[in-house]
Amino acid sequence: MPSDRSYQVVLDGVEAELRRGELAPGDRLPGERALATKYGISRASVREALRVLDTIGLLKSAVGSGPASGSTLISEPATGMARAMRLHMAARNLPLDDIVRTRMLLEGWAARAAAERVAAHGTDFPELAEASALLADMDGDDVDRVRFHILDSQFHLAVSALAGSVVISTMMDSMRETIRGYVIDAFTDLADWTEVAAELRAQHRGILGAVLDGDGDAAEERARSHIAWFVERAIH
Amino acid sequence: MPSDRSYQVVLDGVEAELRRGELAPGDRLPGERALATKYGISRASVREALRVLDTIGLLKSAVGSGPASGSTLISEPATGMARAMRLHMAARNLPLDDIVRTRMLLEGWAARAAAERVAAHGTDFPELAEASALLADMDGDDVDRVRFHILDSQFHLAVSALAGSVVISTMMDSMRETIRGYVIDAFTDLADWTEVAAELRAQHRGILGAVLDGDGDAAEERARSHIAWFVERAIH
Repeated sequence: MPSDRSYQVVLDGVEAELRRGELAPGDRLPGERALATKYGISRASVREALRVLDTIGLLKSAVGSGPASGSTLISEPATGMARAMRLHMAARNLPLDDIVRTRMLLEGWAARAAAERVAAHGTDFPELAEASALLADMDGDDVDRVRFHILDSQFHLAVSALAGSVVISTMMDSMRETIRGYVIDAFTDLADWTEVAAELRAQHRGILGAVLDGDGDAAEERARSHIAWFVERAIH
Repeated sequence: MPSDRSYQVVLDGVEAELRRGELAPGDRLPGERALATKYGISRASVREALRVLDTIGLLKSAVGSGPASGSTLISEPATGMARAMRLHMAARNLPLDDIVRTRMLLEGWAARAAAERVAAHGTDFPELAEASALLADMDGDDVDRVRFHILDSQFHLAVSALAGSVVISTMMDSMRETIRGYVIDAFTDLADWTEVAAELRAQHRGILGAVLDGDGDAAEERARSHIAWFVERAIH
């Protein structure tokens, strides 16, 4: 029995409307009943399409038939890509080590690009102020491991945002999200937390310092060795 | 009405079984009825989960209730990630230009890594023989644009395979797949096809030559300017 691809009609329709600008993130999709009528397919097939859009980070769903049953379009590419990567990593087709090495490559590239941007345009970027503020927050005495990890991720996001590539930030973010479980376990298991936290603070300050100096070589090198140090220390 | 997340139970279950090695690509999943019983959810919810797994490149589906109704697990991460990227590109959250620039960065990195591998271990890799054979095929008089494009993609895959990172190959592959429609249109529209094809052949030979020489700098530079040349010529 051939696979029934009715749900694909909705995906293609949504893609086409997004491309033509008739739909945009923030808009509500019609409810299931209206979509079923519009595309001439069953409500079950509509619901399959909504699950797919939800999984790939394009929809915040509110399933049902009431007046508030529509779903809102969003666009969170890293969320969607991380979900796919995690399952393929589980299927052993994307090795954890390889994900970590790729993250090193892209973090290094992003830190270099951020430094080069500073060298060209100065330090008056909101991302730099945000990165500094995050490092100050990480210095607090009452910062536990979970909070530290959140601030740490936000610091890396701020630096990579300065690099100016949404695609690379998205890929780094999806890799970070894919391996998040391992990193959180590592944070939890570390026996010598105080020492590790001090070292991580120093490394982050080193990266930000090189970016502020506009020194691309140093920024790239420090970002890479920061990831390598943590992986060596905590995951392997 | 809150969203019904029953289908998520199947996704989590499949991920856990993959992780424990109880499932692997090539295995068949039980049919819908059996999965519904196993997870204690409706067949409609099972079907939603199967659509999601299908979309992210983890399943070849055969929906139905007959004896051949099970689906086969596969693992095609680039397919799954490209589907997510294409929709987010349509939602204008991943700009085409940025995807092209990221592809340049990664193609350049992969060509450098391939050359460095040759410098360290010599030229006795099947990927190099394959890349040479593909270039010979591209020289044929009867190669039309569509066939040329296929050989071209395979050439890039062979070089990036030599770089030794499945994750980066997957990302490059998913970007190539995401922008494929644009590239095929560009191939079709080119007025001066004979001239462009001659230039592309020469550029590919240049990249492979640098890889065979183990010259990382030249390989990276040639791979980047190859993509830049084509984009400038054909897409913008």
